[in-house]
Amino acid sequence: MSGAVVCLSGGQDSSTCLFYAVRRYHPVHAVSFNYGQRHRVELECAAALAARAGIEQVVLPVDALSQLAGGSLTNPAIESRLDAAGTGHAYAERRGLPSSFVPGRNIIFLGLAAAYGIPRGLETLVAGVCSTDEAGYPDCRPEFVESLEQTIRIGMDCPEFAIDAPLLHLTKAGTWTLAEELGVVELIRTETHTCYEGERGALHAWGYGCGSCPACATRARGWAEYAALTKG
Amino acid sequence: MSGAVVCLSGGQDSSTCLFYAVRRYHPVHAVSFNYGQRHRVELECAAALAARAGIEQVVLPVDALSQLAGGSLTNPAIESRLDAAGTGHAYAERRGLPSSFVPGRNIIFLGLAAAYGIPRGLETLVAGVCSTDEAGYPDCRPEFVESLEQTIRIGMDCPEFAIDAPLLHLTKAGTWTLAEELGVVELIRTETHTCYEGERGALHAWGYGCGSCPACATRARGWAEYAALTKG
Repeated sequence: MSGAVVCLSGGQDSSTCLFYAVRRYHPVHAVSFNYGQRHRVELECAAALAARAGIEQVVLPVDALSQLAGGSLTNPAIESRLDAAGTGHAYAERRGLPSSFVPGRNIIFLGLAAAYGIPRGLETLVAGVCSTDEAGYPDCRPEFVESLEQTIRIGMDCPEFAIDAPLLHLTKAGTWTLAEELGVVELIRTETHTCYEGERGALHAWGYGCGSCPACATRARGWAEYAALTKG
Repeated sequence: MSGAVVCLSGGQDSSTCLFYAVRRYHPVHAVSFNYGQRHRVELECAAALAARAGIEQVVLPVDALSQLAGGSLTNPAIESRLDAAGTGHAYAERRGLPSSFVPGRNIIFLGLAAAYGIPRGLETLVAGVCSTDEAGYPDCRPEFVESLEQTIRIGMDCPEFAIDAPLLHLTKAGTWTLAEELGVVELIRTETHTCYEGERGALHAWGYGCGSCPACATRARGWAEYAALTKG
């Protein structure tokens, strides 16, 4: 079996990818990113899940992204020397993208994860990007994944490099079904964090969270669809 | 005129690009990176040159790259929690690449510069990548630049985005000729820094530096070729 690195945020998608990866590759390392995200509890979930899966995890600081973003996913308390009009947040608004869009995020995250993995012989990068997200992030589309894969192959001199994005065409219900196939539904339900508010909140059927932010709403809808299919 | 962001390290190549950019684009902003490079004097040169060109400059921290690299361009004093065998340095050796190769560097640098520029309407990225370098970095090849341009267009939802790499096919002598055309030879000669040792050293015909590291040797050779052409 060949090795892989998995981008692990601690959310539902990347955590499902973690358990997908440990079934399919060996060894697996997890790379997480500290970019001043408001929902820092994700990072705690990521560390706990990596430990539970018995794999190595590193957390890489990406301070530059915090400075650039200014989007709703980053901590408003971070003082930015950059002008607000030029932030990713303002750009997303002008382009009709969700305010949670951080320009460049997946180029940076996946680029750094590849830069971690390739020198260690972990030539597959498992990432939870999902093109069916209502958010419609441009850096979660299949053509982006394909283009970045090619760029990394050339730029890191590694023709064997591949991005495995098992959720790319799955709905959120499909992601729950995948978790079921992997035997980790309960773990994903209770040990991952999706809520934008960064609060664990109450335990709902679909997991912990505030229950009202867009991320919780999406997660709850996916769970409801999955539950309907399962019971049906 | 449309705006541009220039990746400015403070070395000969990127500094020549800075003066190329201010002739061709408006406004121009400079983005520099602090990644624990051993030759930190470059950053001082970058700030001075940006001030001299009268443009805005930001310095973005890229701590993750310091942790990952372990190559000869990064400070050996930085304590790394990552294993040495997996560093970019060791990878470069195995692949027959120069030890100064930092896997992922140009993906991260150019990706961050685009993430800074695009939201500000600076849709061209001017970068001093040069495919004729003896170093033969894979992330300085034309096919890399083309692939990354495409990846950024898709990932940041900006079809107008372009990478302008004026040095891509130039020899080092050609870069000096470009500086001459821009009227900045003396400035490039005395106010930029290339030496890997991070020392200003003595003032040679081609500029300051230790005079013996590979970077100084390349710079000196380029200057000699340029001087021969000029006098001939």
